[in-house]
Amino acid sequence: MHDDRGRIMATTGKLLINGSWVTGENGYFQAYNPTTGAPLAQGYSFASADQVQQTALAAGEAFNMYARTSPRARAELLRTCAIEIEHLGEELLTTMAAETGYSRERCESERARTTYQLRLYAETLNSGDYLDARICTAQPHRTPAPRPDIRYVNQPLGVVAVFAVSNFPLAYSTAGGDTCSALAAGCPVIVKGHRSHPGTGELVAQAIGAAVERCGLPAAIFSFLQGEDNIAGKALIEAPQVKAIGFTGSQKGGMAISKIAAQRPEPIPVFAEMGSVNPVFILPEKMNGSAEDLADAFIDSLTLGNGQMCVCPGIVVANKGESLERFKARCTERVNKITAQPMLNKATATQFSTATTKAQALAGVSRLDSNTNVTESTHGFYAAATVLSTDLTTFVNEDDLHHEMFGPAAVIVATENTAQFETALAQLGGQLTATLHGSDAELEHHSELIQQLAAKAGRIVINGFPTGVEVCEAMVHGGPFPASSDSRFTAVGTASIQRFLRPVCYQNVPDNLLPEPLKNSNPLRISRLLNGEKTSSAVKPE
Amino acid sequence: MHDDRGRIMATTGKLLINGSWVTGENGYFQAYNPTTGAPLAQGYSFASADQVQQTALAAGEAFNMYARTSPRARAELLRTCAIEIEHLGEELLTTMAAETGYSRERCESERARTTYQLRLYAETLNSGDYLDARICTAQPHRTPAPRPDIRYVNQPLGVVAVFAVSNFPLAYSTAGGDTCSALAAGCPVIVKGHRSHPGTGELVAQAIGAAVERCGLPAAIFSFLQGEDNIAGKALIEAPQVKAIGFTGSQKGGMAISKIAAQRPEPIPVFAEMGSVNPVFILPEKMNGSAEDLADAFIDSLTLGNGQMCVCPGIVVANKGESLERFKARCTERVNKITAQPMLNKATATQFSTATTKAQALAGVSRLDSNTNVTESTHGFYAAATVLSTDLTTFVNEDDLHHEMFGPAAVIVATENTAQFETALAQLGGQLTATLHGSDAELEHHSELIQQLAAKAGRIVINGFPTGVEVCEAMVHGGPFPASSDSRFTAVGTASIQRFLRPVCYQNVPDNLLPEPLKNSNPLRISRLLNGEKTSSAVKPE
Repeated sequence: MHDDRGRIMATTGKLLINGSWVTGENGYFQAYNPTTGAPLAQGYSFASADQVQQTALAAGEAFNMYARTSPRARAELLRTCAIEIEHLGEELLTTMAAETGYSRERCESERARTTYQLRLYAETLNSGDYLDARICTAQPHRTPAPRPDIRYVNQPLGVVAVFAVSNFPLAYSTAGGDTCSALAAGCPVIVKGHRSHPGTGELVAQAIGAAVERCGLPAAIFSFLQGEDNIAGKALIEAPQVKAIGFTGSQKGGMAISKIAAQRPEPIPVFAEMGSVNPVFILPEKMNGSAEDLADAFIDSLTLGNGQMCVCPGIVVANKGESLERFKARCTERVNKITAQPMLNKATATQFSTATTKAQALAGVSRLDSNTNVTESTHGFYAAATVLSTDLTTFVNEDDLHHEMFGPAAVIVATENTAQFETALAQLGGQLTATLHGSDAELEHHSELIQQLAAKAGRIVINGFPTGVEVCEAMVHGGPFPASSDSRFTAVGTASIQRFLRPVCYQNVPDNLLPEPLKNSNPLRISRLLNGEKTSSAVKPE
Repeated sequence: MHDDRGRIMATTGKLLINGSWVTGENGYFQAYNPTTGAPLAQGYSFASADQVQQTALAAGEAFNMYARTSPRARAELLRTCAIEIEHLGEELLTTMAAETGYSRERCESERARTTYQLRLYAETLNSGDYLDARICTAQPHRTPAPRPDIRYVNQPLGVVAVFAVSNFPLAYSTAGGDTCSALAAGCPVIVKGHRSHPGTGELVAQAIGAAVERCGLPAAIFSFLQGEDNIAGKALIEAPQVKAIGFTGSQKGGMAISKIAAQRPEPIPVFAEMGSVNPVFILPEKMNGSAEDLADAFIDSLTLGNGQMCVCPGIVVANKGESLERFKARCTERVNKITAQPMLNKATATQFSTATTKAQALAGVSRLDSNTNVTESTHGFYAAATVLSTDLTTFVNEDDLHHEMFGPAAVIVATENTAQFETALAQLGGQLTATLHGSDAELEHHSELIQQLAAKAGRIVINGFPTGVEVCEAMVHGGPFPASSDSRFTAVGTASIQRFLRPVCYQNVPDNLLPEPLKNSNPLRISRLLNGEKTSSAVKPE
């Protein structure tokens, strides 16, 4: 299938290396339809380590030119990527649905999120805030020594490798947050696609490749590979041109990448978002007044995308008693009505089944719903929503209950009193999110608990549920280890650009040779810190 | 010696742990006077691993309270630290001079730099820019889904361990840039002092301890230890309460710390500033017109602090010819007049002697000066300024010439033409600084070279020399690996606070429960990103 410009818009199984679509030299694989378990027709090729090295070499050369493009040129690229992704039309939606088992509505909404994100980052580029421009003008008469003119601006880090995720083939993968923020920063990107959705990845890569060409930029600023972790993946992490890595996925995967990256002759930063259990604490007055509404909203959040969300609420903590029983009853009623839904791939379905089977077999843990786990023995890779119930003592003693069971599973922990909420929280490592429900009076009374949640999580949610990660300037999607490998940065929202920048300062550099953001006249019209004051005024030379 | 408030102002050899001065349980050591090589009278005690763990535990508990102090309270602490350091008076200056061999003038100027830095960071805290506050207000009527209210602010990371450096006992050690920025961020600090200047470290720790007490803050927000690297040092890096590390020193030391930190169950960030050779490129017209002046300024920079500077200019690259001969002749004349000066300790003097002896013995390398290396066989730990000369081919082939010889040694590399400057640059890893000298016309003609320097260094200096790291908002002291372990952050200048912060976002949190920087009324009067625009206005609730 080609569009009216002759552009191919169909999967081929090839890889995008330095502007050419080539066949990988390390064998073939197929994707599966999770709703049937059957392999999909198109074969895809794996890159060899040699091909990865060629890709990195070309990207490294393209960096020199791309790093010097104007913020406006990069904003234009991001907007063009959005247009080209939309231009993929029906082909993208049907390919994605076949590879993921997601509903058409989910595919459309994820596409909308992805293109919105690209356009939002384009606006951010134009504002220039991400540059963090700072100017300290010379003080030639200062004693005991004069101060030179010193100017500071963020510059791109280098080639970024992005490892695509299973559960968001668009928003966190080929053209997702990592790619979008790295391209915005001025860094070439090499995507290693996820083998669960190679066709979706390839189509999006075609769109980005077309956008790069339309914008007249070097082809090698964007590459798309498929490959085996221990061959292409390892070669990509070890390529000397690669200066940072973006990853979303499991803790095991993130830690494996971090380890290889730390052992390089030149260690490089890894931004691994590794998920969490996203605890939800419900205070008694609120529970008493809204048990059923809370249960409905909780089950909606738990089962969104069949629970395959980094911010899926996996733990609910509330005091035992009549209102918690109503909450549990409503959860049970709701979950029993939900039929098993497809998981993204066989491994994910199997891991979910193993984790939930193990958890529900623990002494002191009971399963509320009457669903049965559906595994690969049936056609397709299905999982049924699972709600477990336990008491605080069991929760404290069972380490298995403290970790993510990726999928639609949650544990309801009954405490004796709200003072015990802190004990429950203390069992958990760093979290992407932590949620508190309460009446106004209860929240005010538990302000200390909010501070404790903020010490452990990247995002605090009050009277809501954690699913739905808003793409905006103020989002934090990250958190203390092991939620992410570096809590100082977010993976979602415009602040994510900062992961791929480093500051450079210029001492006594003549105005005509300064980077645009630092020139006296402020040609980019950005806000700068000028001798300690934020201003978009020009610098008046001495 | 006590002051009029009864405060002790003399060295005792003890350690500051959780507000008490106690004797270390892992043996004793002495410092040496580098000018005589003789041990100094005061004995100092080493902390045991147990004592380190106690210190970390107390610091971790203090974090909960200190993290919640207002920026104003922390600014007051920094100012009080400056006052208390000044209050140490003569005792500090004589102790520092005895332990370092530095002139009184150097001791006074480093003290001034240190107290200036503390006061500058106090001002930065009051401005609130480091908080990076961002607010996206709710859009309840947005389709397809409403947007919640989301607010973002930087919060302190946790306990920071600071490893003091040999060459700046004040400005980069106990109360130096790492301590100052961590305390500013809201992070408790545990300093591991440098064994070359334990008395200077202890006196400054007494001053900080007094400041913490005067400000009514928890004693355990600042601790001071001495210890052996493989016992106290390792225990400190591995303490679970420690969430980040600041280090200035050798590449070997920085990499050893990074390795231990990466292998923790919870890996933590390490900010290691590991030095560099700080290449200086001189274009021909400039050299022709100013060979002697350039040589004078270069030798001044090379021998400042007897070359014991992270930003000491260790390589000069210029075209061969008559003007370079004049430059070399002047360097030789200048250096021959400089008597050997003390190095900070025996190991540094020995390493310098070994490195320069090896370099000058290479085929193709000649030594210009007629100094002789002075090692520990004489009284004291002396080193003589050393200027070597070579051609580009030798420089390219000899890896030994590409690395820092910590001390007053430089290599002058003669090229055939300025196109070869790029070849010389290509031999070098990441640098703290890179310098270019040229006439206005030459600089304009070599704008490409400036871009290449910026791709490899944290600070670009034009027509100057790299020594003199200005403490201001726009400084970058850091650079691509191996100059520092994380090029995205600076170790000097107010942006260094960002190393010890992480963002947290608050979703639909009632105004009365939001952190101060995010409240609608903007009580801190700081600049915030409000729905995409920088403003210090209040938020008008819906």
